[in-house]
Amino acid sequence: MFNVHPDRLFPADANQRGIARRLHGATAGLPLVCPHGHVEPRLLADNQPFSDPASLLVTPDHYVTRLLHADGVALEDLGIGQGRLPEAAARAVWRRLCERWAIFAATPVRWWLEAELNEIFGVTSRLSAETADATFDQVATHLADEAFRPRALYERFNISVLTTTADPCDDLAVYSALDSDPSWSGRVIPAFRPDRYLEPSQPEWNHSIRRLGEAADVDTGSYRGYIEALESRRRYFLSHGATSADHSHPDARTDPLGDSEADRIFRSALAGDATQAEAIAFRRHMLFEMARMSCDDGLVMTLHCGVRRDHHPPSAAHFGSDIGADIPLQIEFTDALRPVLERFGIHPGFHLVVFTLDETVWSRELAPMAGFYPSVYVGVPWWFLDAPDAIGRFRAAVSETVGFTRTSGFVDDTRAFCSIPARHDMARRLDAGFLARLVSEHRLDEDEAAAIAADLVIGQPARVFKL
Amino acid sequence: MFNVHPDRLFPADANQRGIARRLHGATAGLPLVCPHGHVEPRLLADNQPFSDPASLLVTPDHYVTRLLHADGVALEDLGIGQGRLPEAAARAVWRRLCERWAIFAATPVRWWLEAELNEIFGVTSRLSAETADATFDQVATHLADEAFRPRALYERFNISVLTTTADPCDDLAVYSALDSDPSWSGRVIPAFRPDRYLEPSQPEWNHSIRRLGEAADVDTGSYRGYIEALESRRRYFLSHGATSADHSHPDARTDPLGDSEADRIFRSALAGDATQAEAIAFRRHMLFEMARMSCDDGLVMTLHCGVRRDHHPPSAAHFGSDIGADIPLQIEFTDALRPVLERFGIHPGFHLVVFTLDETVWSRELAPMAGFYPSVYVGVPWWFLDAPDAIGRFRAAVSETVGFTRTSGFVDDTRAFCSIPARHDMARRLDAGFLARLVSEHRLDEDEAAAIAADLVIGQPARVFKL
Amino acid sequence: MFNVHPDRLFPADANQRGIARRLHGATAGLPLVCPHGHVEPRLLADNQPFSDPASLLVTPDHYVTRLLHADGVALEDLGIGQGRLPEAAARAVWRRLCERWAIFAATPVRWWLEAELNEIFGVTSRLSAETADATFDQVATHLADEAFRPRALYERFNISVLTTTADPCDDLAVYSALDSDPSWSGRVIPAFRPDRYLEPSQPEWNHSIRRLGEAADVDTGSYRGYIEALESRRRYFLSHGATSADHSHPDARTDPLGDSEADRIFRSALAGDATQAEAIAFRRHMLFEMARMSCDDGLVMTLHCGVRRDHHPPSAAHFGSDIGADIPLQIEFTDALRPVLERFGIHPGFHLVVFTLDETVWSRELAPMAGFYPSVYVGVPWWFLDAPDAIGRFRAAVSETVGFTRTSGFVDDTRAFCSIPARHDMARRLDAGFLARLVSEHRLDEDEAAAIAADLVIGQPARVFKL
Repeated sequence: MFNVHPDRLFPADANQRGIARRLHGATAGLPLVCPHGHVEPRLLADNQPFSDPASLLVTPDHYVTRLLHADGVALEDLGIGQGRLPEAAARAVWRRLCERWAIFAATPVRWWLEAELNEIFGVTSRLSAETADATFDQVATHLADEAFRPRALYERFNISVLTTTADPCDDLAVYSALDSDPSWSGRVIPAFRPDRYLEPSQPEWNHSIRRLGEAADVDTGSYRGYIEALESRRRYFLSHGATSADHSHPDARTDPLGDSEADRIFRSALAGDATQAEAIAFRRHMLFEMARMSCDDGLVMTLHCGVRRDHHPPSAAHFGSDIGADIPLQIEFTDALRPVLERFGIHPGFHLVVFTLDETVWSRELAPMAGFYPSVYVGVPWWFLDAPDAIGRFRAAVSETVGFTRTSGFVDDTRAFCSIPARHDMARRLDAGFLARLVSEHRLDEDEAAAIAADLVIGQPARVFKL
Repeated sequence: MFNVHPDRLFPADANQRGIARRLHGATAGLPLVCPHGHVEPRLLADNQPFSDPASLLVTPDHYVTRLLHADGVALEDLGIGQGRLPEAAARAVWRRLCERWAIFAATPVRWWLEAELNEIFGVTSRLSAETADATFDQVATHLADEAFRPRALYERFNISVLTTTADPCDDLAVYSALDSDPSWSGRVIPAFRPDRYLEPSQPEWNHSIRRLGEAADVDTGSYRGYIEALESRRRYFLSHGATSADHSHPDARTDPLGDSEADRIFRSALAGDATQAEAIAFRRHMLFEMARMSCDDGLVMTLHCGVRRDHHPPSAAHFGSDIGADIPLQIEFTDALRPVLERFGIHPGFHLVVFTLDETVWSRELAPMAGFYPSVYVGVPWWFLDAPDAIGRFRAAVSETVGFTRTSGFVDDTRAFCSIPARHDMARRLDAGFLARLVSEHRLDEDEAAAIAADLVIGQPARVFKL
Repeated sequence: MFNVHPDRLFPADANQRGIARRLHGATAGLPLVCPHGHVEPRLLADNQPFSDPASLLVTPDHYVTRLLHADGVALEDLGIGQGRLPEAAARAVWRRLCERWAIFAATPVRWWLEAELNEIFGVTSRLSAETADATFDQVATHLADEAFRPRALYERFNISVLTTTADPCDDLAVYSALDSDPSWSGRVIPAFRPDRYLEPSQPEWNHSIRRLGEAADVDTGSYRGYIEALESRRRYFLSHGATSADHSHPDARTDPLGDSEADRIFRSALAGDATQAEAIAFRRHMLFEMARMSCDDGLVMTLHCGVRRDHHPPSAAHFGSDIGADIPLQIEFTDALRPVLERFGIHPGFHLVVFTLDETVWSRELAPMAGFYPSVYVGVPWWFLDAPDAIGRFRAAVSETVGFTRTSGFVDDTRAFCSIPARHDMARRLDAGFLARLVSEHRLDEDEAAAIAADLVIGQPARVFKL
């Protein structure tokens, strides 16, 4: 039997814990600002009940399924790629999670799930083979309840804005529908995510470029038209509330090409003739172009680079992407971002928020850059690094060079809707704990720490992401 | 005067220390599982008394001699390369250690030696010029005693299995002799260590390949015969109790070659005509082949890559290898291991345990891979990183992504027989301390922590190394 | 109202804090040994009053101005590049610092400034818009006082030796003047800093080489003459008290060229014909040559490599170098330094002190090298890493491999004269805290920790830098 402990994730030292409690207490009731994530907006537009515990908490969350897979559960036995699961199948998936609950020890996944189950669904037993059915039933019963529909949870979670990435060709009708729905007072906005249009090596790039042209009503048969189409779609996103554009490539290089070279490669790529080196050069050039457009139209530019996507091709072929088989790469930013920063680094209003899965760059590259360029912000820990000790390493690595005002404020980056409050609370607790240490080491006064804790939650993300 | 403190290496915080004490207490009496190391098996087969304190604790242990060398002691003055030392020489070597004892402050070497001297030999004075002779005498007196012969110490140390690397051409007679000795109830098994046969750039590679052919009774003049010989020697090791094959190369790349290309380079290399690039390509191909063989025969594959061996060639020319002049290299695994993982990553029963001296890969590459692939395990801290704070960094970096079940369990990797209990105890204390912090931060319940602490010591290494 | 807290920067845990207090207390009164830095020696030779608080504490200190710039203050609004500021301008610069004081939270800059203001100038109010004028006036009043002239502060700071880098062509007259001044009993010595003469890609390299020839009275039109000129200037520095030569290049490679190849590139470079690759090869060769010269003449060789200088060319074009726009690069040392270490690694009296902004190399490369080669010392945290938590990471990363005797002892590396005591005190407090943890974890006895703490402050830097 358990309830999540009120002191969870606070420092062990009694003096620091007391300070952390006070700092956290002052932020615990503040709304959740969500500047970047992947929740399906249709969820809130449709406001249908969630179907079952497994489909809500297991199957779509690659943080959860990947560890079960490593422990020997086949992806098909987790319901992946099977659409809506019959109850027996959902129950079996849930049971697999419960039986293997011990493997999640020390992971934030365990922590988030425990918080979700306890605080949202009132579950108080530890997951195990013995409690599998009862906990499934308890969550399932709640899901049938009106109070557990997406919009009700959005209210209950106290979310003030929810940003979700969308394809540049998306008509954003779901966002418009929500925006104009008189029965809905939340705020859900899209983020422009154009990766597939910027990488000629992506499968069916030709087709994507044609679709982009149709969406923008521009002929993308020429490089000039292609650029116009991207600019046009960015404006379309802006007019639907977007404040940011998000980019994820294997590296972060931004070497610009001359116009004629860009044009030449673009035509080669459309004809299917571009070499791999040309495709990469074009992608890097386009990242530079995205920065230029951000200076022109004001969309905040966020980078999530340095991942080998679909590291296990057989699984990708069978189950698609985003199944937990993406593995980080070592990455460098100092030289990679230099072309963009030389040109736009002190451009008024340009915001470049850089996330990383390679934590070595925090103290070595990102903090030093954010400590000179007014445009650069260090993104908070992302994905594998969005975890208690890693968050502590982040603050320790970054704060000494740039304090707190050059960091992004918390970003949940999740597709697991119900995990949002737990993720925000985890970050708030850890920032409170970090600040408590500074106070106890006489590096900061407690009134200053309290102001910083609150600003990291509300002010900082709003300023950085122009919300 | 000292006895090693019962609370050594536990967290300073009183609450955490109390939990750590309890967790450690429950593992302190468990046997030592040793899945990988370099103790000479002849030691136990012959069961002769150790000759003297310096030859036991100083001369053969490059952890010890390297720091003395850095402090200005010539390697010849440490007895290196001189065979059995006369008593005066041994006493002089011991004195050099004692005089410079202060340089070992904060190192695990100090901690291990202190524990060995105190707990095995009853020494209670701090080493120094003043205590050099007395401590030498005290240890020497014990060494003459029957109770301090290798087999008696093996029993006293409570070792359940001791794995030691062996050359593929080794006839393993020593292991057989031990195995069939009715007066001996321990378990000493070989690990297959074929590096020199896989790297055409190794000195006298031709000669090695010929010897390999003789050992396997296969003509290794062709690539096909060479592969057969390796497969045959692996089977021979399996039949002598081996459960793992160990590999150490400068990098971990595993790019396979086509058969005809592999055959072509093999013949060039035998003829002494292979370029450096070809030699490297062949070595990487062979690492892929080793994974294939592991899938076929079940030997656990362990990697100890990323070291520049014999960094100081003049010392290597004079004193040989393994004298403390190996220096780690930056390394990457995400792309390096991809070919092997694409092909064998979810092969049933394939175990790939990856060790590193580059701690940046723990959170960035190894934990994410071990959190998806059922075959991949993250090796515990190795060599320079087998040290208290580094072990803490390891658990902090890895556990949040993969918990504890995707790690290897403790591996002592030592050639210093008497350091084995101290090394295991150090790891147990540090894991207890790490778990105690999780409990005190309400991230884990104490009963869960206790189960994990015990499993890391017994269950996990047995499963991972198929012992 | 504040006074800096007597327990600042000590560990939070009460037991550790008590030990840290005792360890620090024993070093707090010891003199400041300054083996490397960038204070203008003319300051002490002229002994003129400092002009105003902004020119003393803000404008010339890129640690301070870079964060203000990132927060949106233009460099021209900080007085950069404007020579002596009129009082109104100085006051405005000071106000900009005060208004944005909050952005420095958690940075060592805040900590140093607070300590300087409080302990040197008696300021007890927190900086803010409200206190800007009063604090400006308070500091300005003191600056007019005889007791706040540079020489008086040098005495008050208890500096025993102050090393400052100088150009190889410098006539070192300022150092001579100080040395022969009967009214001055301090010690200010130059360090040889030849970067611009070793990199053919530097602007106006030809001109530099000609000036070098004039300074040495040697014809530098040939490679042989160039080498002779460098050797001659090193001797000149030695005769003026220098004990070290300092080097800062983008990487640390030391691959030697044959004499004829070096000669060929040298002549190409003089003629403006060297390719970029040749210029880099020559620079790396010259770093090897510098090591050779250090073996010959005894100057300690210090490396500060791995920085992309002038990362933002528009700012460099406008304001010059050293304005806070240098960004660290990933770097490797194991292979880079191998040529030098193969040849000179065990040369008697050769000292190679390696600093880094890439903290990943501490445990992976530098500590392992310093733990074998008697010539190699690991430099303490430099620049962005000279900060409380980073210093803790340094000790944790390095000590377990090489203890304390293979590290450099504290180096302030500053051009901010008044920050010297605060920087030394910060390091002493953090080392005391680190040692206190080892004592509390029973890894070291307190008497040993006390000896180490004192040695790190006085003995170690004196030995390593041959002071």
